[in-house]
Amino acid sequence: MTTVAFIGLGNMGAPMAANLLKQGLTVRVFDLMPSMVSTLAEQGAFSCPSACGAAAGAHIVISMLPAGRHSRSLYLGDDSGQGLLDTVASDTLLIDCSTIDVDSAKVIGAAAEARGLAFVDAPVSGGTAGAAAGTLTFICGGELEAVTRAKPILQAMGRNIFHAGPVGSGQVAKICNNMLLGVLMAGTCEALSLGIDNGLDPVVLSDIMKASSGGNWTLEKYNPCPGVMPGVPASKGYQGGFMVDLMVKDLGLATQTALTSHSATPMGALARNLFVHHARQGHGGKDFSSLFTQFRPKSE
Amino acid sequence: MTTVAFIGLGNMGAPMAANLLKQGLTVRVFDLMPSMVSTLAEQGAFSCPSACGAAAGAHIVISMLPAGRHSRSLYLGDDSGQGLLDTVASDTLLIDCSTIDVDSAKVIGAAAEARGLAFVDAPVSGGTAGAAAGTLTFICGGELEAVTRAKPILQAMGRNIFHAGPVGSGQVAKICNNMLLGVLMAGTCEALSLGIDNGLDPVVLSDIMKASSGGNWTLEKYNPCPGVMPGVPASKGYQGGFMVDLMVKDLGLATQTALTSHSATPMGALARNLFVHHARQGHGGKDFSSLFTQFRPKSE
Amino acid sequence: MTTVAFIGLGNMGAPMAANLLKQGLTVRVFDLMPSMVSTLAEQGAFSCPSACGAAAGAHIVISMLPAGRHSRSLYLGDDSGQGLLDTVASDTLLIDCSTIDVDSAKVIGAAAEARGLAFVDAPVSGGTAGAAAGTLTFICGGELEAVTRAKPILQAMGRNIFHAGPVGSGQVAKICNNMLLGVLMAGTCEALSLGIDNGLDPVVLSDIMKASSGGNWTLEKYNPCPGVMPGVPASKGYQGGFMVDLMVKDLGLATQTALTSHSATPMGALARNLFVHHARQGHGGKDFSSLFTQFRPKSE
Amino acid sequence: MTTVAFIGLGNMGAPMAANLLKQGLTVRVFDLMPSMVSTLAEQGAFSCPSACGAAAGAHIVISMLPAGRHSRSLYLGDDSGQGLLDTVASDTLLIDCSTIDVDSAKVIGAAAEARGLAFVDAPVSGGTAGAAAGTLTFICGGELEAVTRAKPILQAMGRNIFHAGPVGSGQVAKICNNMLLGVLMAGTCEALSLGIDNGLDPVVLSDIMKASSGGNWTLEKYNPCPGVMPGVPASKGYQGGFMVDLMVKDLGLATQTALTSHSATPMGALARNLFVHHARQGHGGKDFSSLFTQFRPKSE
Repeated sequence: MTTVAFIGLGNMGAPMAANLLKQGLTVRVFDLMPSMVSTLAEQGAFSCPSACGAAAGAHIVISMLPAGRHSRSLYLGDDSGQGLLDTVASDTLLIDCSTIDVDSAKVIGAAAEARGLAFVDAPVSGGTAGAAAGTLTFICGGELEAVTRAKPILQAMGRNIFHAGPVGSGQVAKICNNMLLGVLMAGTCEALSLGIDNGLDPVVLSDIMKASSGGNWTLEKYNPCPGVMPGVPASKGYQGGFMVDLMVKDLGLATQTALTSHSATPMGALARNLFVHHARQGHGGKDFSSLFTQFRPKSE
Repeated sequence: MTTVAFIGLGNMGAPMAANLLKQGLTVRVFDLMPSMVSTLAEQGAFSCPSACGAAAGAHIVISMLPAGRHSRSLYLGDDSGQGLLDTVASDTLLIDCSTIDVDSAKVIGAAAEARGLAFVDAPVSGGTAGAAAGTLTFICGGELEAVTRAKPILQAMGRNIFHAGPVGSGQVAKICNNMLLGVLMAGTCEALSLGIDNGLDPVVLSDIMKASSGGNWTLEKYNPCPGVMPGVPASKGYQGGFMVDLMVKDLGLATQTALTSHSATPMGALARNLFVHHARQGHGGKDFSSLFTQFRPKSE
Repeated sequence: MTTVAFIGLGNMGAPMAANLLKQGLTVRVFDLMPSMVSTLAEQGAFSCPSACGAAAGAHIVISMLPAGRHSRSLYLGDDSGQGLLDTVASDTLLIDCSTIDVDSAKVIGAAAEARGLAFVDAPVSGGTAGAAAGTLTFICGGELEAVTRAKPILQAMGRNIFHAGPVGSGQVAKICNNMLLGVLMAGTCEALSLGIDNGLDPVVLSDIMKASSGGNWTLEKYNPCPGVMPGVPASKGYQGGFMVDLMVKDLGLATQTALTSHSATPMGALARNLFVHHARQGHGGKDFSSLFTQFRPKSE
Repeated sequence: MTTVAFIGLGNMGAPMAANLLKQGLTVRVFDLMPSMVSTLAEQGAFSCPSACGAAAGAHIVISMLPAGRHSRSLYLGDDSGQGLLDTVASDTLLIDCSTIDVDSAKVIGAAAEARGLAFVDAPVSGGTAGAAAGTLTFICGGELEAVTRAKPILQAMGRNIFHAGPVGSGQVAKICNNMLLGVLMAGTCEALSLGIDNGLDPVVLSDIMKASSGGNWTLEKYNPCPGVMPGVPASKGYQGGFMVDLMVKDLGLATQTALTSHSATPMGALARNLFVHHARQGHGGKDFSSLFTQFRPKSE
């Protein structure tokens, strides 16, 4: 039976690991916060005193960490000790589900390859709701063989598994997608607001645009105007959902990637700056569709 | 039997009028270009020497003109003569399918109302292909009764008929939609280009984003990257489709509307300027998805 | 001796007319607000019951009005009566100091020319302080002879008199300048804020940039960071100075002009949208350098 | 007498080192390109086989390198050998005149401090012309004592010496300035182009804006419209001056800095993207004022 080490038990990692437990898998967990480890242990996981300890004896390692520097420390080591690449068994499959910068993913991938280890970068989309429901989308970068090996375990936590290309491609594809999402949301906010300013009912305008060439994911699933769509963050005071601060992070990763590849991303750069302005005014913890309020008069 | 006057027989108007003829309706046509009139006359229309002549005795007048000043001249009159509002029978239904500025639509609508005439602004989306196939979308502004009267005749030329609100609302909704379309296209161009710059296959990246939160109409129907989707303008040298110059016109109308309502439209304004730069470099006559080429190195 | 009619006695017009009185000129004044007329009458002006009444017998008419529609009504007439062009003596020199859209200025200029009247559009810069001090800059459009005739009277109210070209050119030049000013201010705000975010003293950074290639009018005269420069609005709670709402108006006129000439103005369009966002959040009445606060964390 | 080691003899470094020789200083030089070293040796410099060799026995080390990774390799060492920090005498003053990312400057500064070495980051502005003429501006970051020690040698190569703050502040201030420069240039290009599109003479418009609130360094010294100002790159086919590719690099460094400090820089980000579009179309080697041509119709 497959033993999985799961490193990083935050808002996303904890429900993902829980889903593995529900499948009856043996899961060895580690997080810097002992309380996170305890919660998973109560659900049947083996709590481990370190990442390397968790990975020892596991067939598959899955990590879910906040940023590139954490992934690099985990896999490559740092001042405080060796990295996983130097401690795991040679047939271990390594899957980093963190959303990180492309360079870090490539550096880890190259170091893994130099040691003969299979490594996949597999950032997710779907948010905490998708993590809990087991309906995440995984966008994988890595060798075909490694991604094929990763698929069954990822399917225990998600629904769609894409293979974007070699190591690092998962990050690139996710970043491109989320940059476009930021553009869609900003554009949808201002189109709806322009309509409202000119006397249109946002429900009617949303229906028209959904059925026309303005149709996009945010209109379908995530209307940013309060009251148009029940259940979405806009209709719940912009609570829950995908935080402005996380959109700022992803648009920052897209900008970083564009700097490295000397690409022009004028729309994505503008979207990033609109979200940063919004965050600076104290809204970083709200759902990202709250950008809509920037377009409305203050009295509303 | 219903007699329709059709004024303006350009790339859109001619196939729309032809579809009315195919339904067996009596159609009286006028255009400033006699050759346009002849072509429709060959298909069974009655050619008329003037717009007022075409409208005399018609139950419904449909106009399809390039800009607000043409619609104003037609309905309100100008130095060269009276407008239709002062010559048509009092029970005539007036439908302006032109895409024009909101103010012009409202001014005509108010003048019609003052004379007790039913007026609907009903701009279309769907392009010349939709006009020929009779699959246009009409976005109507006007009194409920007038729009209800207009529906059957519009259904002879299109598929979806929306009622956006009072007179002028058709223009507002179309402008909001097309502004958003410009944003979607520009954002999709740069997301695909960023992926390509970082080693992704645009086919794979398009598939991933279509199934994720980056999904939008341009990815579904109109991929701007050559070779990704067969049959679209991008795969035919950016010929046909929706011209850059027309997207510039629509983004200009959106900007105009935003100026009047003191609205912020940062994404739409940036999209307009990207398309204007593109047009200034000699690409105004290409399909609007050719903006993609602005993001690629020149040698490609 | 020269008799001047002065129409429009607002924040700018009143001190301008007062400066003419100080030069010993005969000044006939009119404003829709009787209280404005009274104030000037107390300073020695002749109060008149209408614009046409003020202009009767004047050698020079000067107008200072809020927007193009007011200038058109004044010179061309409207439902309530004839315009000045049809009532003034044939040798009257007409000077419109209003900042209005280019088209309105050209329409008035053409109508004046058709009647053999000399017309100059002469928008000003320098604000209410410059109006009071008599140090305004006038940017004139019109025939060389008309502008030459206008110069002495303008010098009674200002310091620099420019001749930008034919009628309407004064508006174009002012709009170009003020669009650039909006860009300079927004760029300076974000450069200073980026420095502060990275530990620099804004006084030191301002000194460096002023002496380097970042030097510009806003750094020299109008530093937007509180405490850097004594006496400017930023050091007085952003009171006084040039209101955000007026900058939004001028950037709107620039956008309008760019739409008509199919010009790309990406930086000016972005600046307009940043100022509109700022105004929508309730800051329209503050000095335009308060845009700086948009770039700072809310707690500051 | 002072002995100076000069590392990096490119377009900027070579004339800077030559100016030190003209002051009668002993200059020990190194560059990876032997031909560069030979040229300086002919002017009286001592050619050295390595950077460490050049630095041995020097009182002051000056480096002028293309990017952060080169400065890090030089001072901190890399796979090919030790860095200068581990080989120079303890009283050596280290001055890095390269324009690099802030993080690299801080990392080198911290490592120097840990070894008790005086380090100053001192990026320059003024271009190759300023380097040849000895009129560069140096923007220094470092301890007051170190900057004070650096001043006399910098004055042998430049005119203005600024102290921006602690180590890294030189880079921050230069980046803020150059981001603002990019904004000024883009804004000036579009203001001039808008005027031309509306019939103004760019010479007249430039004069008006220079004397008004649109005044800025690019209008004063570097007008981007051909024929307005003799001698500038715009009047010489956009040859010479400051390359588009270098402006893209500096705007990239500004963006990088803004990502790290979570700052909003909407105008700078847009300027970067306009310059990247321009570079992608094959103009990366032209002077940066050639952005003006993006605003003009292609036929011009």
